[in-house]
This record gives sequence, C-alpha cells and structure tokens, in this order.
Amino acid sequence: MDLQHLRPSREQDAPIYLQLYRRYREAIAAGKLRPGDRVASVRSLASELSLARGTVEMAYQMLVSEGYFVARGAAGTVVSPRLESLVEHNHARKSVAAAHASPHPQNISDVALPFQLGLPALDAFPRKTWARLAGRNLRMLEPETMTSADPAGYEALRRAIATYLGISRGIACTHEQVFITVGYRGALELVRRTLLQAGDLGWYEDPGYIFARQFLERAGMRLEPVPVDEEGLNVSIGQQRAAHARFAVVTPTHQSPMGVALSLPRRLELLDWAARSQAWIIEDDYDSEFRYHGRPLPALKSLDRDGRVLYTGTFSKVLFPGLRLAYLVVPTSQVGKFSDMANHLPGPGSILPQAMVAGFMEQGHFARHLRKMRILYAARRGYLVDALTQMMRESLHIQPQAGGIHVLANLNTNTRQSDKILAAAAQANCLAVQALSHWRLRKSTQGGLLMGFANFATADGATASVSRLKAVLAKL
Amino acid sequence: MDLQHLRPSREQDAPIYLQLYRRYREAIAAGKLRPGDRVASVRSLASELSLARGTVEMAYQMLVSEGYFVARGAAGTVVSPRLESLVEHNHARKSVAAAHASPHPQNISDVALPFQLGLPALDAFPRKTWARLAGRNLRMLEPETMTSADPAGYEALRRAIATYLGISRGIACTHEQVFITVGYRGALELVRRTLLQAGDLGWYEDPGYIFARQFLERAGMRLEPVPVDEEGLNVSIGQQRAAHARFAVVTPTHQSPMGVALSLPRRLELLDWAARSQAWIIEDDYDSEFRYHGRPLPALKSLDRDGRVLYTGTFSKVLFPGLRLAYLVVPTSQVGKFSDMANHLPGPGSILPQAMVAGFMEQGHFARHLRKMRILYAARRGYLVDALTQMMRESLHIQPQAGGIHVLANLNTNTRQSDKILAAAAQANCLAVQALSHWRLRKSTQGGLLMGFANFATADGATASVSRLKAVLAKL
Repeated sequence: MDLQHLRPSREQDAPIYLQLYRRYREAIAAGKLRPGDRVASVRSLASELSLARGTVEMAYQMLVSEGYFVARGAAGTVVSPRLESLVEHNHARKSVAAAHASPHPQNISDVALPFQLGLPALDAFPRKTWARLAGRNLRMLEPETMTSADPAGYEALRRAIATYLGISRGIACTHEQVFITVGYRGALELVRRTLLQAGDLGWYEDPGYIFARQFLERAGMRLEPVPVDEEGLNVSIGQQRAAHARFAVVTPTHQSPMGVALSLPRRLELLDWAARSQAWIIEDDYDSEFRYHGRPLPALKSLDRDGRVLYTGTFSKVLFPGLRLAYLVVPTSQVGKFSDMANHLPGPGSILPQAMVAGFMEQGHFARHLRKMRILYAARRGYLVDALTQMMRESLHIQPQAGGIHVLANLNTNTRQSDKILAAAAQANCLAVQALSHWRLRKSTQGGLLMGFANFATADGATASVSRLKAVLAKL
Repeated sequence: MDLQHLRPSREQDAPIYLQLYRRYREAIAAGKLRPGDRVASVRSLASELSLARGTVEMAYQMLVSEGYFVARGAAGTVVSPRLESLVEHNHARKSVAAAHASPHPQNISDVALPFQLGLPALDAFPRKTWARLAGRNLRMLEPETMTSADPAGYEALRRAIATYLGISRGIACTHEQVFITVGYRGALELVRRTLLQAGDLGWYEDPGYIFARQFLERAGMRLEPVPVDEEGLNVSIGQQRAAHARFAVVTPTHQSPMGVALSLPRRLELLDWAARSQAWIIEDDYDSEFRYHGRPLPALKSLDRDGRVLYTGTFSKVLFPGLRLAYLVVPTSQVGKFSDMANHLPGPGSILPQAMVAGFMEQGHFARHLRKMRILYAARRGYLVDALTQMMRESLHIQPQAGGIHVLANLNTNTRQSDKILAAAAQANCLAVQALSHWRLRKSTQGGLLMGFANFATADGATASVSRLKAVLAKL
C-alpha cells in the first residue's frame, strides 16, 4: 500500500493522529490492507509523511488497543490476523468497529433475539421526542446538573415518580421517600445495606427472578424458597418454613415468571406476618404498567399501614434497559436511615439520564408512551399466542396472564423432553426461549417455556419464529 | 382570582393537567395567588372549566407534591404559606421550581460557592461540542445502547480510557482491565467486594480524602492512619504500625489534600511491601491531569510489576462531577474475578453518558479540553495565590503545589484561632473554605485552609472573595 494514501489533511478539523487512525481503518475495511499484512514502522511512516513520531505512535496505539493491529516486537506491527474471518464474511463493521462509530444504526435483530425476555419493544420507543428533550437538557447543561449529584437521586425525577405512583399505583408518598438507583440491583443493594445483615434469612418466590436471587445470595443473604401457586406466594408455607425470616422478596402484581397476581387474602396475610415479626417486604413491581384486561391492581405498598413494605419499580421495561434507572420507595419512618446510607454508597449515576426521564414524565410523554405500549403489547402478545396455538397446541399449553411482556407456556404431558433440554436446543438456534425450571429453586415436574413477545412487530414475524422453534424441537 | 384565567387550551400540545399545573405556577409567580390563599376545590374548578375531575386532581396532586399547594382536608387546599418568604425575596424561581423547569439557566454563583473544593471550572466546559455529540448519540439511539448495559461498562469507553492511560499516564493496559464505575466510590466498592473482607485493615493517608475514608469505614474496613510528609505517605511508619495490612489507599501523583508527590524511593518501597505481604494498593489518581510546572509524573501503576496496584481515575474533575463516572484498572491476573463480581453489582449506570464520554475522547475533544484547562487553571491559581499573598500574607503561608485545583495555605504561627474555627466562620459566610485538620485522622498542631480556585474566572473575583474571607476572619 502506498503510504501517501495515509497522509492526513491539515485542513481537517480532526487531529492528525485521529485522521491517521481512521485512514488505517478505512484501508482495512476496503481490503487495501489485509489481515496479517505488515504495516510501516512508526519511524518510517513519520518520516515519509513528515509527522512527529509521537503522532504516529498514538494512532498505532489506538489501532493496537482496538484490535486492528498486533505489535510483534522486532517482527514489526501487522494487521491482526484475527480480522481474517470477519473481513471474509463481510461482518467487519459490526463485530470489529466500536458500535457507535458505525455509520448505520444496527438492526434490532442484531441485538434482540426472538422470544427475548425482559426487553421492551425497541422499535416503538419515541426516539424523536427523547432526542428533542435531551437536546434541550444538554444545551442548557446548567451548573446545577454539572455539580455533584444528590446520592438519593435527581429531585425533579423523585417528584415526578412520587406523583406517578400516587396516580397509577395507589401509593401515597412524598419525593423524600423516593430513592433513584442504578437498576433493581441498586435498589436491592440500598435495602440490604440499610436494613439487612450478612446471613439474614429471606423468603424468595419459587420459581422467581433469577438475577435478583443470585445478587442477594452473592451478597450473603440466605434465601428460603416459598412456592408460588395460582394465588401467588404461599404465605402459610413461608410461615411454616421460616416464620422468623427478616425479609421477603415478592412480585405481587404479576409474579415473575408465573404471571399470577397475589390474592388479596394473601396480601393481608403477608403484611400481617411482616408487622408481627418486624420483617421487611421488598415489593418488586417490575412490569405492572402492562396489563391487557381486568382492572389494574394497586401495589401491595398501597395497603402498607405499618411501614414494612419497600417498593421498587424500574424504567427498564417501560422505557429501555440501557437506562439502568430504577427507584425505591421507603416508609416515612425509614427515610432518615436510607438517606444516611445513600450518602455512603456510589449512588444512582449521572444526572443527565435522570433529568431526561424527569422531563419525559413531567411533560406527559411517559403517560402517553405507556398508553401506546399497552395497546401495542396487547397486539403483539396476540401474535405470539395465535402462532403458538396454531402450530404448537400439541406440545404447549399457554397460561392465561393479564399482563407483562412475556408468555408462559407449560409443557403438555406428552412432551418427552424436559423444558431445560428444549430451551437449550432453542438457544443453540438463537431463539431466546427460557426454561421455567431454570427459574426454580426446588425441583418440580411441571416444565414450561418463557417467551418474550415485545419485539414481534408483526403476526408474520411471530409465526416465522414459532415455526423455527417448532422445527428445532421436532428434531429432538 | 378569576378561574377562567386557568382555562387550558385544547390547541396546545401539552396535556390539560400540565397546562393547569403551569397556569397555577404562573399565577403564584406573578403574585395573582398569594401564599395562604385558598384555591378552588377540584370539584368546582372541574365544573367551571368543564374538565374531568381526574384531570384537575392530577394537576393539584403535582402542585401539592412539589410544595406549591398544601391540602388541609376539610378546610380545602391553599397556596403553601411556606412560599411567603421566598416570594417576598423574589427567590421563588430558584428555590421552589424544579431546577430544569426553570426558564433561565442558573448562575454559577448559585451553585458553586467561592473556594469550593473538587469542582472544575463550570464556565469553561465545551457545552456546544458536548451537546452536538449527545444529539448525534440520541438521534441514533441504537438498539445496542437501549438494551442491557455491560456491567463492566460501555466497551467503547473502556477502550478509549485504556488508550488514554497508555499515552498520558504510562499505564499499559487493555480495555478488559478497565471497569467503569459510578464515581470513585463505585470503584472502591468494586475493589472491596472483589478483594476485601469486613474487618480488613488498610493504610490510609493522614491527612487524607474524607469521603473515601468515611465510605470505607462505613463498609466495615479498619483504617490505620499513616502520616504524609514532603515525600508523600511515610511507608516506613506504615510498615511499623501495620505491616500486615491488607491494603493501602494512596494519592501518589498529588496527595489529597497536601499536594505533594510520592517520591520514587517511597513508590518502590510501597510496591515492595505490597508484593511481599500480598497487599493491595488502591491508587487514587483523582486530578493528575492538572499540573502546571515540572514534568508530569507517571502513575504508580506504571511501576507495578507484581500486579498489586488497583488504579482509579475519575471524570469528575476533568469533565464535571454530575457525570458520576470513574474507572478502575485491575491487574490482568484479577480480570476474571472482577468481571464476575461486576456481574453481581448494580454497575456503572446508563449507557448514554458513557457513550458521550467515549465519543468525546475518541474525537480528540477530551485531549483538547485538558490542554485548555491546564492553561486556564494555571491562570486561576495565579489569581488566588496573588490575592492571598497581597492580602493575607500575615496569617497564611501558601504551600507550593505543582498541580491540582485547590490551594493549601498553612496558618502562620501568629494565628490565634484553629483552622477549624476559621473555616467554620468562613462557611457561615458562604465561603467554602475547608480546614486541613478536618481531613486528619490524628491531631496535629499544623493548621491550614484548603481553597478551590477553579471557578475564579477573573483576578478581581479572587480578590473580592479573599477580601471577604479576610474580613470574616478579622472579626474573630
């Protein structure tokens, strides 16, 4: 390759080293430089192009650190041979280039696999509104949002959440009770550090949300599995097995993953147990916003007269998971303790995304987005359910669920393989189906498959994915 | 007040409840409604304006939750009497309104007090470039950045940091060794959870950074104060007092708050101790980017042959603290352990700010900003030092420091009061001077004042603040 092709332009805005770095990347992408090719030494390129050696070194260092170049000591520097297969298959852009340096937006199919759980509809997010809001926030970039963040979260967002919870979830709270956290884990961590101690025993729904279970166990909590039936968590069994537990983690609105609601008698029984034994209830209200028939259930927290419920919600399902924003509402009596602990933890992260969500809520976009998504998800759920009913009625039995963004289909008794084997086969074929057994703490004979539907944009899309799933399972 | 003034417009884009809420706020700001005034009941306003009661209720709920209204049960709802003094003093905008609902950007003086520590120059941040970058990021909003974030951080940012550290701090590392965290505390938390146990003993610089000390103590660490002299941390004393400590937290480039650099013999002694006793060194390189004379010192990490140094840096001083983004570089041998633990912690927060900083670095804006800030801070440091020398030579003796964004002035022996008393008096007068003694673990007779200079935009500004300080201290 002629080194003159690499010559940077003094006219351009970008610094010389960056231009050099880009020229090299372009040369590789265009096939002018092939994997394994030796590139000019720093010294000779600097001399050829009359550049400072430091400038060339910087460009090379970037190319090495990003995997384009490999330094081979005395043997010189070469274009990484590992790029071979990628360049061959013309996938160089996606796999090699840093994602946001890519000139084209990626396809959703590159990111979300069919049936993927816990992911909202990525195609239906109001990008323009979001970008407009953000633009305003950023142009302002007020000194207030540049200085240190409140460890309890950005106040305007805490206020917006308190208002929203009052209206939508029947929770009467002030913004002082609301703490913004990095995801649901951040909320669990704040609860754990403020109220729990290593070795404390807690009730955990069985089956129940895997990641929170692992998070709590890793942090030294002991978890007692408490079975879930058609009325939700079986509180009597919890009391039999571990009456003196210090806490219980529950998903009362829409049990994760079974989808049932905790019945009113059970709710009262649970609250009564917590009040008597001074235990804490952690209410995970992760996707209550989506409900397609029947009246929306108020949160368990709305019945909490004794201040035992720690309520958590998240923006991962209603906006998008990459936000990593969740929130915790604590009883009034605990605000002081939680504020104090929040001052000694890393906190909720940058103000910017918090300010954006606050604006989104205050200006009514949030409520509008939720309304739209409820209609959209009802339709998309229909696509999946129809496809499953038409094609896989023999092997699967769909559980009725009033809400959420996934479907649970139990295996019919004639199915020979376990749900784990079925899910593993599906996953090996890039279908992100999950096995119900995988979410259980104790063994059970009842297997099932969990399937997300939020990204099935059309009935045809759902049909195509279900027929792929059917074909994969038929081979077993 | 005529209720018709509140009538929302059907033409407007904003939802009715939001228009109503805004009308009320405007009416209060304009003095049409005064603190203590009773407002129309939900029922009568809804009927007067032919609106749904739910709509009016929602607006009222927002006004109550934001402190504009107070609900008094049967006595009705009134404009909060607590607004009285604020409205009187015409400060209503700043103190009452949620910050980003405010129509005017705030002044820096509203946020940063004179002498405030740890705050970069808020007026010199390249807002336009930042907003442009963000705009691009947001319009794209690629599915990849919408889905779940990598708990170790956004890859492009990890790569950009690895490149930067190689060039600027002499640290050879790959992006796999870099973990993005929510602030320095997030980095400490990741280290603590991965490598340390409750009750572990560590060396801590005396005087040393208060907030990290409190953070570690709160997390159950025991800290042994190790004195700092003109060569930095006294490693021999550390070994005498606590040879078997499990870790040491140090600020080798620019000791916080004394400003001295850890000498090369001490660096080697410290690394040797860590290697022999299998202890961990946490290097806090919080403001190494700013150095105004002499050669920049490479990081301690650059000498780490035995993989004992955990290196941390932050964007709080070089960009702005509200970002809450820091990073940790771990030895190659520890990458697996740290990745595993990162999977079980809340993580670094939203991808958005990470992607913005990555773009800022990759496109060379970061390096350019640092170059500009070095020149700016050298000038601003000069303003403060000149003012102190001219006006307070009698009572203060300025320590020479090669870098950083604060000045340490020791009290001369003729000063009667302790530095704590002086600082308290200054703070009572809104001058954010801090007492050196406050940063100490053990008592010392040598008092001093710590003063930030980054936001003294002019010599006159520094002179005015120093003369205010002098007047306050003269009264003691």
